[in-house]
Amino acid sequence: MKVKDIKIGAGLPAFGNTADRYVLSGYGEQYSIEQLFERAASVEGLAGVELCGNWHINEDNYHDVVEKLNAYNLEVPIIVPDLWTQGKWKKGTFSSIDPKIREEAVKEVKLCMDIAALAGANMVDIWLGQDGFDYWFAEDYVESWKRIVECVSECCEYRTDVIVAHEYKRKEPRTHLYVDSCAKVKCLMAETGNKNQGIIIDTGHAQAAGEGVAEVITFSGSDLCHLHMNDNYTHWDDDMIFASVHTIEAIEMLYWLDKIEYKGWYSLDIFPYREDEVEAVRESIAWIHGLRALIDHLGENRIEEVIATRSATNMSKMIREAVCSF
Amino acid sequence: MKVKDIKIGAGLPAFGNTADRYVLSGYGEQYSIEQLFERAASVEGLAGVELCGNWHINEDNYHDVVEKLNAYNLEVPIIVPDLWTQGKWKKGTFSSIDPKIREEAVKEVKLCMDIAALAGANMVDIWLGQDGFDYWFAEDYVESWKRIVECVSECCEYRTDVIVAHEYKRKEPRTHLYVDSCAKVKCLMAETGNKNQGIIIDTGHAQAAGEGVAEVITFSGSDLCHLHMNDNYTHWDDDMIFASVHTIEAIEMLYWLDKIEYKGWYSLDIFPYREDEVEAVRESIAWIHGLRALIDHLGENRIEEVIATRSATNMSKMIREAVCSF
Amino acid sequence: MKVKDIKIGAGLPAFGNTADRYVLSGYGEQYSIEQLFERAASVEGLAGVELCGNWHINEDNYHDVVEKLNAYNLEVPIIVPDLWTQGKWKKGTFSSIDPKIREEAVKEVKLCMDIAALAGANMVDIWLGQDGFDYWFAEDYVESWKRIVECVSECCEYRTDVIVAHEYKRKEPRTHLYVDSCAKVKCLMAETGNKNQGIIIDTGHAQAAGEGVAEVITFSGSDLCHLHMNDNYTHWDDDMIFASVHTIEAIEMLYWLDKIEYKGWYSLDIFPYREDEVEAVRESIAWIHGLRALIDHLGENRIEEVIATRSATNMSKMIREAVCSF
Amino acid sequence: MKVKDIKIGAGLPAFGNTADRYVLSGYGEQYSIEQLFERAASVEGLAGVELCGNWHINEDNYHDVVEKLNAYNLEVPIIVPDLWTQGKWKKGTFSSIDPKIREEAVKEVKLCMDIAALAGANMVDIWLGQDGFDYWFAEDYVESWKRIVECVSECCEYRTDVIVAHEYKRKEPRTHLYVDSCAKVKCLMAETGNKNQGIIIDTGHAQAAGEGVAEVITFSGSDLCHLHMNDNYTHWDDDMIFASVHTIEAIEMLYWLDKIEYKGWYSLDIFPYREDEVEAVRESIAWIHGLRALIDHLGENRIEEVIATRSATNMSKMIREAVCSF
Repeated sequence: MKVKDIKIGAGLPAFGNTADRYVLSGYGEQYSIEQLFERAASVEGLAGVELCGNWHINEDNYHDVVEKLNAYNLEVPIIVPDLWTQGKWKKGTFSSIDPKIREEAVKEVKLCMDIAALAGANMVDIWLGQDGFDYWFAEDYVESWKRIVECVSECCEYRTDVIVAHEYKRKEPRTHLYVDSCAKVKCLMAETGNKNQGIIIDTGHAQAAGEGVAEVITFSGSDLCHLHMNDNYTHWDDDMIFASVHTIEAIEMLYWLDKIEYKGWYSLDIFPYREDEVEAVRESIAWIHGLRALIDHLGENRIEEVIATRSATNMSKMIREAVCSF
Repeated sequence: MKVKDIKIGAGLPAFGNTADRYVLSGYGEQYSIEQLFERAASVEGLAGVELCGNWHINEDNYHDVVEKLNAYNLEVPIIVPDLWTQGKWKKGTFSSIDPKIREEAVKEVKLCMDIAALAGANMVDIWLGQDGFDYWFAEDYVESWKRIVECVSECCEYRTDVIVAHEYKRKEPRTHLYVDSCAKVKCLMAETGNKNQGIIIDTGHAQAAGEGVAEVITFSGSDLCHLHMNDNYTHWDDDMIFASVHTIEAIEMLYWLDKIEYKGWYSLDIFPYREDEVEAVRESIAWIHGLRALIDHLGENRIEEVIATRSATNMSKMIREAVCSF
Repeated sequence: MKVKDIKIGAGLPAFGNTADRYVLSGYGEQYSIEQLFERAASVEGLAGVELCGNWHINEDNYHDVVEKLNAYNLEVPIIVPDLWTQGKWKKGTFSSIDPKIREEAVKEVKLCMDIAALAGANMVDIWLGQDGFDYWFAEDYVESWKRIVECVSECCEYRTDVIVAHEYKRKEPRTHLYVDSCAKVKCLMAETGNKNQGIIIDTGHAQAAGEGVAEVITFSGSDLCHLHMNDNYTHWDDDMIFASVHTIEAIEMLYWLDKIEYKGWYSLDIFPYREDEVEAVRESIAWIHGLRALIDHLGENRIEEVIATRSATNMSKMIREAVCSF
Repeated sequence: MKVKDIKIGAGLPAFGNTADRYVLSGYGEQYSIEQLFERAASVEGLAGVELCGNWHINEDNYHDVVEKLNAYNLEVPIIVPDLWTQGKWKKGTFSSIDPKIREEAVKEVKLCMDIAALAGANMVDIWLGQDGFDYWFAEDYVESWKRIVECVSECCEYRTDVIVAHEYKRKEPRTHLYVDSCAKVKCLMAETGNKNQGIIIDTGHAQAAGEGVAEVITFSGSDLCHLHMNDNYTHWDDDMIFASVHTIEAIEMLYWLDKIEYKGWYSLDIFPYREDEVEAVRESIAWIHGLRALIDHLGENRIEEVIATRSATNMSKMIREAVCSF
């Protein structure tokens, strides 16, 4: 079963320029995109970096960007169309009541699909972070959902060789988002009916939505096409070092990724606001490898035997003995 | 659009015998089922009471029970199979690894379907409150989901004149439940494919899952077949008096129920641990009527106009003026 | 009992320039500080604007700023020292292990105390939003608290004619903050022992900390010296229009503010990311006045009688009848 | 620094008879109190069991109970007065508006103080789980707090050789409790002024209140007199096996307990609803020993050095290397 060689990637914010609503100018040093690439390239075991459309890569610079990444021996796992960093998206993109906004949003996705194909990513990350609601009576939910379905369909049909991958999140930046759970993504995929779609699980989004990460991994099954890894305290998308809070849950999710024969990227989406960014990436990668080694150490058979007992205390014993065997 | 005559019901715990893990013997006076009926019958405007299989109604007493309810002029909106009040269900019902437990669970549902048909309810409420997980590595999620799908299918096929209605909840009594969101129910219905299924929205379950209630009402659309009404502080299923915490959200959900032309019951699922139970039911009913009257007072046209502006401040003004117009 | 004339203020972000970690360039139009003043001045019933040290008001411009505000007939309720908008504060201010950072932080507060005295505010808002912890084993809690106590003391002793007012919050921007509850502020005040201290309750911070707002208002009692008003969904500091989510809780807190004879400002701390900012302020003010009128309409006697019954259903009836009496 | 010999105890519910509001008859087998003692005695390394007043131990049986425990070589770490298992407490005990209820509550505590002294516990656990509020406008917070202070004082003064220890919790069974945080306990202790008081930290209550457990351990300092250990998902008091969810946080709290030279009991308060209860206790104990051994393995010096760097990545590396060193 074991997928031997996993590819680990990371989003660019992991390497610097983190900011929040209080420190808009950024918590750490500010880096150019080229410097971010350089920092990424300095991390052993990192195979690729995710890029955002418009912001990092666009019609004008994509040749240049891909060339630079090649020089660093970095791949592009996925392109993320920028549907969330500009004020114009503030009342929604695909669900906007303004047909021009919807058109712009679809155009941005299509452009990213083209760039993705050229950059060898073949996948775009649709995160509808600005499509949701904050106040009661301020949305027509029926219309909004209909528009989301239509826009997703239009993107899917634009070119079927690129996967339109859906990243869900319950809240932030809106207090409620439309595409808010793994099951909601499945409903969206069923309604549109297009084949070239997939599910992205951001482990922290799943935790903040009250989901069990391993459960949604299995629920996604072969639809799971990409992974964002981080950790948090379940109340918010804290984007912390992987496994730093929910260590045992992290082991379990790594086990089930192999079990469903997931072959996609293990991509970090962390925001090391106050940490040395490069070290935070290194630690996240080291946790992934360390906990995968722990799974190997236990062995698939033993784990399967324990799961077959449906016993929390057997599980506890198994994990505890491994963790405390220094 | 306005559905003029709504039917209001309530679960029996609303009328007494509330308990929790600390006060197992109950917070208030203890009542016999007949006394609970009598208390229900004393509430003006209450048209029916929900009954639990096994516990309230079963093969032996259903004739008697239905007769008594008739005498009180009370209908039975729905029968709730008892898949959650006995220790034997503690590690799941439909998802249990024990084939005998699954068989018993399915048998209980089928019996309730028969009783529902006889009692004029034509609907059973499948709440898989014991099917979920608490500890990592203690479940095989793939198998569990497969079993849930199979058992639901078997129930649906048993008799197609009774609706198998799914009530979802994110947590409690397990820390994580499988059927945990409105979208998950939709996925379950799609996987089984049976026509005689529907969605039950418990407004408090939706709030505690981080959903917007009106949003899931519209997302359910014509699949919405029953409603449980209560309120809470969003962290837990507090089962409080309807509209007592989220007053404006309550107005919005009542508006959208009419808008999607919902014609089912408005059934209260409240647990008045420390309140006079009958008064708590009366208050919940009075809030439903009072806030529906507020919607009438505003008028569908004005509300539609405000929603069309997608403006939180227009909404705020509209509601505030109505609320502060004493 | 009724405090007849309340003064309503607002922080400047209420009038524009809102941003978050996704849209760093801002959701709406960008305004100069003078434009923000102008916008504030356009709101009828707004008596003052809160200013941040460094950012809005500082050694160089305070004469000018105060003059401009005078021209607009706006007062300054409080000065907020900037201990949270610069990257240098990222690992704490008063609790920093770096003595130079602590010194800078204390110096900033002292400067703001001077400016406050000159601007007629006589109060500074100490919000230690960057003093907390995110990861386990990354803090020495004993030392950190000791340093906070020392720095607060030093500020208090600098000049006793200015009140050092403490604003607490459970999380954000750190995942855990030291000064995280109303009771923690009381402990801090007791440990320092300085008289010129007070408590600021931000209603949304209280809600997001799981507190009842009215309860902490009474718990603060005569120590309550300032108020930030907004609303949220209890999981995060959403900084929404006052009373827009928790309408009944808003009525109750307004009642208890009069009851404890609170005579300070009613200051709005809202972030209207996607709303017309000026309208959002107007609505918040209108809710304060509308709900205070509702309290008058009910009358202090009736409310006291209802509270004396300790009955949730009596409360429900009283509020419902007022709210539904259009 | 290291406190070499810790004493581990447990509350009786850890050994059986768990129930909740759905399965009032209990999830597992039902045991007599004597059987619970026997089960407790079967656990190697368990030195004592906590007893509840009224329910487990009372005026009539205490001789007998203590004798039986002696026979099993079990001590009594603390007596918990029953202020929360009877319907009569539903609207509060110390904060009740009914003077007879307050009198009964104080009498129950005094009796437990006598029993505690006789049983060699010398400590009572005041958990005011029924003193709080659920609905707005249903409490007079000022009076309630005053009454709590008075009743606590009366208990403290009754006999100064027994410690009145306060256990706080944010919610459950009420939606909001008065004594809801570690800092609130400190305020209560300061207001009463009695010396024979202390703080009980229930690690799960701290987590569910959004506190960092190590932080409140240090904040309590020498006032910390007892410990309840368990784990949860931070939204609710799930009372799970210690360290099963927040493993690294568990290591950190064990470290700080030694650091503040805590010499009290390590007492388990777990509710193994669906697990083999005795095994769940054994696992919790094994985690405590295993993680304390991990701390020894790292060495106090190395941990101090890492904390001195205030670096989350250094912490991560240190813990990860220990955890993954099988």
